[in-house]
Amino acid sequence: MKFASFKINGATSWGLIDGNDVADLGAVLRDKFPDLKSAIAADALAEAAKAAGKAARHPLTAITWLPVIPNPDKILCIGLNYENHRKETGRTEVEHPTVFGRFANSQTGHLTDIIRPKVSTDLDYEGELALVIGKPGRYISKKDSWSHIAGYACYNEGSVRNYQRHTHQFTPGKNFPNTGAFGPWLVTPDEAGDLGPLRLQTRLNGEVVQDTTIREMIFDIPRQIEYCSEFTRLEPGDVIVTGTPGGVGSRRTPPLWMKPGDIVEVEIDRIGLLRNTIADEK
Amino acid sequence: MKFASFKINGATSWGLIDGNDVADLGAVLRDKFPDLKSAIAADALAEAAKAAGKAARHPLTAITWLPVIPNPDKILCIGLNYENHRKETGRTEVEHPTVFGRFANSQTGHLTDIIRPKVSTDLDYEGELALVIGKPGRYISKKDSWSHIAGYACYNEGSVRNYQRHTHQFTPGKNFPNTGAFGPWLVTPDEAGDLGPLRLQTRLNGEVVQDTTIREMIFDIPRQIEYCSEFTRLEPGDVIVTGTPGGVGSRRTPPLWMKPGDIVEVEIDRIGLLRNTIADEK
Repeated sequence: MKFASFKINGATSWGLIDGNDVADLGAVLRDKFPDLKSAIAADALAEAAKAAGKAARHPLTAITWLPVIPNPDKILCIGLNYENHRKETGRTEVEHPTVFGRFANSQTGHLTDIIRPKVSTDLDYEGELALVIGKPGRYISKKDSWSHIAGYACYNEGSVRNYQRHTHQFTPGKNFPNTGAFGPWLVTPDEAGDLGPLRLQTRLNGEVVQDTTIREMIFDIPRQIEYCSEFTRLEPGDVIVTGTPGGVGSRRTPPLWMKPGDIVEVEIDRIGLLRNTIADEK
Repeated sequence: MKFASFKINGATSWGLIDGNDVADLGAVLRDKFPDLKSAIAADALAEAAKAAGKAARHPLTAITWLPVIPNPDKILCIGLNYENHRKETGRTEVEHPTVFGRFANSQTGHLTDIIRPKVSTDLDYEGELALVIGKPGRYISKKDSWSHIAGYACYNEGSVRNYQRHTHQFTPGKNFPNTGAFGPWLVTPDEAGDLGPLRLQTRLNGEVVQDTTIREMIFDIPRQIEYCSEFTRLEPGDVIVTGTPGGVGSRRTPPLWMKPGDIVEVEIDRIGLLRNTIADEK
């Protein structure tokens, strides 16, 4: 199953993707599950999906896509998690995942503009697989980790590189408004299947700029969940963005920055195709 | 005026400090302002305080103190912002503030336990001045910055040093549950007055371990607000934790770690005295 968060006629909702439509579960289940996060927290996605038959349907062309989870408590990003990306950045090998945070207000949805801020032109893409936590927990073992995942989505972890490099902490470059594209939808684990062989591609104006399979990760998903849940309690709706492969624009000669009018896509087999345009801040 | 967030008889509330009591504003204004953040967002602290006369009063000894803002959207921490701390860490000088994030679930209140997690003994203190954003904004100028502050509080930015140093990103060491002590209360700017000469002291079991005045900051508060609001929109209730002076335990020989039974205090003139005990995770 696939679930999305969206706006229609000015109202925020969420629903079940059904072909070219979305069944508006938010409208029929609002008292119980006002947003996708609350349905995930109640472990009620399957139950909610049963209400699709009596829900209004909107063509996907009519909705404004929101970030899959617009309101996560935490977005934990894993840095330098593919060997070809680690090498292109010149970073040494480490024994633990590199983790930094994004705040929820840095996110944007499918088919929206990623905003190039007026203070920088160094706007870079990072195609990634994101996972959303379902069952909460602390000190989650690798073995148990899969049972804590509600689903997967594509993420473009847009980065303002000069701000990222102002100091050794990445936070400023990773939190500009409307730079973290998250969509189009959440794919449940049964539908995603075995992630290892899935291909992740980032394309800028149709040209492939990043290309990997998920199994190339340095720290796999069980290790990421194990590590993150050592230092924080993972809550329903929390997002782990699992790292980007080599090919980022900032490490090219000359650098390849995203600029207004560009179209950037992150596509992962069986997960989806996330497409955004770049626009200058107004 | 001083405002605090607290629990009483199992219910979460907030109120105005009046001597040894707190007037329970949350109970009388719940429909309008369910928490301190919502009153700040409405720029209604002065208005809310007028309801104190008809509010129930609780002795401060009867409440459980919560973090001043238990539910901020963002907690932005400024690293290496006093020269004697920068020097003790061996970091080079930088042109911009160093910023990393904490998530709300890492916080705890006055007179509660700071928790030493079972995975580490390297638990360190960092006494700091915290400010809370009132008026939201982006691209806030230094000149306008003061008008965006709702008030100040003490913060003990408890850090698990080995996790902080697993990689170059600080996030894991800065987000363990119940390590960020924030209290006891919010002091409004009129009552805080000129911050420069205020003395900040951290004491561990009564011994002074950090001692500075606020004017010793490398990047002052206007510069912090200017910089942070370049990369993110500051929202009401957002917290900026303004940095710790020299004297942290991890840079001593031998290191001075906080251990169960210890009492740690952060005191800032006119702002307050934040006291916590250390306890092992259960």
